[in-house]
Amino acid sequence: MALETILSSISAVNAKFIEHAQKHLDNLTKPQGSLGRLEEFAKQIVSITENSMPSLDKKVVFTFAGDHGVADEGVSAYPKAVTHQMVLNFMNGGAGINVLARHAGADVVVVDIGVDHDFAVEGLKPAPIVGGLFISRKIVSGTRNMRKGAAMTRDEAIKCIDVGIEMANGYAKRGYKIFGTGDMGIANTTPSSAIAAVMTGKSVEEITGRGTGINDDTWKIKVQVIKDAIALNRPNPSDPVDVLSKVGGAEIGGIAGLIIGAAANRIPVIIDGFISTAGALIAYSIEPNTKDYMFAAHMSQEVGHKTILEKIGLRPILDLDLRLGEGTGAALAILVIEAGLKIYKEMATFGEAGVSEKG
Amino acid sequence: MALETILSSISAVNAKFIEHAQKHLDNLTKPQGSLGRLEEFAKQIVSITENSMPSLDKKVVFTFAGDHGVADEGVSAYPKAVTHQMVLNFMNGGAGINVLARHAGADVVVVDIGVDHDFAVEGLKPAPIVGGLFISRKIVSGTRNMRKGAAMTRDEAIKCIDVGIEMANGYAKRGYKIFGTGDMGIANTTPSSAIAAVMTGKSVEEITGRGTGINDDTWKIKVQVIKDAIALNRPNPSDPVDVLSKVGGAEIGGIAGLIIGAAANRIPVIIDGFISTAGALIAYSIEPNTKDYMFAAHMSQEVGHKTILEKIGLRPILDLDLRLGEGTGAALAILVIEAGLKIYKEMATFGEAGVSEKG
Repeated sequence: MALETILSSISAVNAKFIEHAQKHLDNLTKPQGSLGRLEEFAKQIVSITENSMPSLDKKVVFTFAGDHGVADEGVSAYPKAVTHQMVLNFMNGGAGINVLARHAGADVVVVDIGVDHDFAVEGLKPAPIVGGLFISRKIVSGTRNMRKGAAMTRDEAIKCIDVGIEMANGYAKRGYKIFGTGDMGIANTTPSSAIAAVMTGKSVEEITGRGTGINDDTWKIKVQVIKDAIALNRPNPSDPVDVLSKVGGAEIGGIAGLIIGAAANRIPVIIDGFISTAGALIAYSIEPNTKDYMFAAHMSQEVGHKTILEKIGLRPILDLDLRLGEGTGAALAILVIEAGLKIYKEMATFGEAGVSEKG
Repeated sequence: MALETILSSISAVNAKFIEHAQKHLDNLTKPQGSLGRLEEFAKQIVSITENSMPSLDKKVVFTFAGDHGVADEGVSAYPKAVTHQMVLNFMNGGAGINVLARHAGADVVVVDIGVDHDFAVEGLKPAPIVGGLFISRKIVSGTRNMRKGAAMTRDEAIKCIDVGIEMANGYAKRGYKIFGTGDMGIANTTPSSAIAAVMTGKSVEEITGRGTGINDDTWKIKVQVIKDAIALNRPNPSDPVDVLSKVGGAEIGGIAGLIIGAAANRIPVIIDGFISTAGALIAYSIEPNTKDYMFAAHMSQEVGHKTILEKIGLRPILDLDLRLGEGTGAALAILVIEAGLKIYKEMATFGEAGVSEKG
C-alpha cells in the first residue's frame, strides 16, 4: 500500500529555510513586512521546496469525482446524474474550474475515482482533451448509502487514498511544482459534514450547510441523515481511515491522498473549499506534518468550513463567498501565492536600487 | 478646469445591465450564486461599461508620486529622499508595483505630480522605460508643511485633480479598459489620516496608524502634528477641495481626479490601500456616483483604512495584511476581478453542456 510506505518520508518543514527567506525579504525595497501575507506565502514555498529560488511554473488542479449512495436520501438540490454530466463539462472546458485554471495557467486533471457512470459510453479515454486530462481510477461506482451501512470498506478507503498518492507521485515526476485540490460529487457536502462532526466534536447542526442551495426542509432531512449515519456506523474519531470509509467518499479519500503525496514530494498543495478541507482533515489526522505543505485557498460560504480550517490551523487566502468546489478557489489562490513568490524573486534590494533604508 | 466640466457626465450605473448580467450568470453550469463575489464583479463590470460582453484586455496602474512638507515634522520612518529614489526604482522595474503589475498583465504609469526633486538630473523623460512610463505633471515641488499652513492652495489642489482627470481621459482614448490607483510619497499616511479625521468625524487617534513602521514615540508625534494641522487650517468637511488643499497632498488629488475621470469615461477603477482610499473619499464627496465605478482592492493593515471604506460603502476584495501602497493591492485585485469576468464570459450554460438543472 502506497499510504503506509510514504508516511515515513513526510517531515515538518525546516525553519532555517524560513529564516533565509525572511532575511532576503527584509532587504527588498519596501518597509519590512509591508507585503503581509504575500511574504508569508513566499517563505512557505521556500521552506516546502528547500530551494532558495523556487519556481511554480508547472501547476495542476486535480478534480476528484465520485458519487454518493446517500444522494438517494434526497439531501441535494441536484439529481445524481449531474456528477457525470459535470465531468463531461470539465472535459469540454466549460465549467468554472476550467475557466479559473486557464486564468491561473494551471492544467486540470479530472480523476474518476468513484463516479456511478461508465464513461466508455462517451468515449472518454485517459488522454488530454479540450478542457483537461481524464484519468480513470474508479475504486467504487458510487459509495453505498451511509444511512444504511458503511459508505466504503476500509480497503476501498485506503485504495482511494492510494489513488491520490499515485497522482502526487506521478505529477511530481512530470515536473509539476504546485498542486490544487478539487472535487465533484452530487451530495458530497453530506459526507464532508459527517466527517467534520465526527472529527471536530461539533454538533451536526453546526457544521451542516446548504450545499448547492437546499431549502429548510431538505436541510432538516440532511441533518437527520448525517445523525443516523453516524449513529449506525459509529466511526472512530481517532482512526481517520475508519471515518473516511464509513461516512466519507471516494473523492474525499483521493484528496487526502493527494495532500499526503504532495507533502512526501515537498510540493505545496492548495486546499479548495469545504469538501477538499474535509479531505485535508483526514490527511492531517493521518500525518499532522502535512499541514506545513497546505495552503487554504479560501473561506467558503459552506458553514462547516471555518470549523475544519480552525481544527487544522489554516488561515484562508481569499474570502469571496465561493461555494462551488471543483477546485475553483484553489485555482484562483494559485495566482495570489505566485504573486508572493514573484515579490520574493523579482523585487530589487535597497542596495541594487539605491534607495535609503529606514532612518 | 477639467473638474467642473466633467462632473455633469457622471451618472449612477443603470440597473438594467445588472439584471441582464444576473440572468446570464444564473444560466451557467453552477448552482446560482455559488461563485459569490466573482459574480458580483462581473455584474459591476457589465453595468459600468454598459456592454454585455466587456473586455479588460488593456490594464494600467497609475502611481502618483508627491512629497510632503509635513515630513519635516519627523512623522515617517524613512527619509524624504526615498520618494524620488522609489520613482527611479519604479522606472527600473524593481519595486513591488512593477512585480505585481507584470503578474497582472498591467502597465505601470508613474506620474510625478508633486515630487520635490528634478528628475532631469537622471535624464527621466516622458517615455516608456523598463518598468513603466514616466509622466511629468509637477503641480508642486512637495506640499508645504501643513502644521504651519495650508499644504496647497485651492488652485493647486484643483490642478492636481485635473491631472488625474487628464490621465483618465488620455488612457480611455488609448483603449485602456481598467485602471488601478497607486501612490508614492514619504509621510503620506499623515495627510491621509488628516483627511479621514476631518471627513469621517473620527478622532485622530482612531484613524492614525504606523505607516511605514513607526514606533510609539513617533506615532504620538504624528497624532499631534495632525491635530495641530487641523486646528490651524480648519478644513471645511463639506468642501472636499478645501480639505484636499489644506491637509491633503498632490498625489491624493491626482488619485481623486483619476477616479472622477474613470467614472466619466465608464471605466472601472480599482482603489488601492489607505492613501488611495483617502483620494477616493475626496472623489466620492465631490460626486457620490463615482462609487459605482470603484472596486476596493484590499483591506490594508493601516488602521484608518476600514473607516474610510465604510464611509464610502466599499467591501474590500483581498485581505492580505498589505500596507505598501504604490498600487500593489490594486494590481493584485485586477486578477480577481478579471477572474469574475472570465467566469461570466467563458463558462458553458446548462443547455450547452447538457447538465441537468436544479430538481
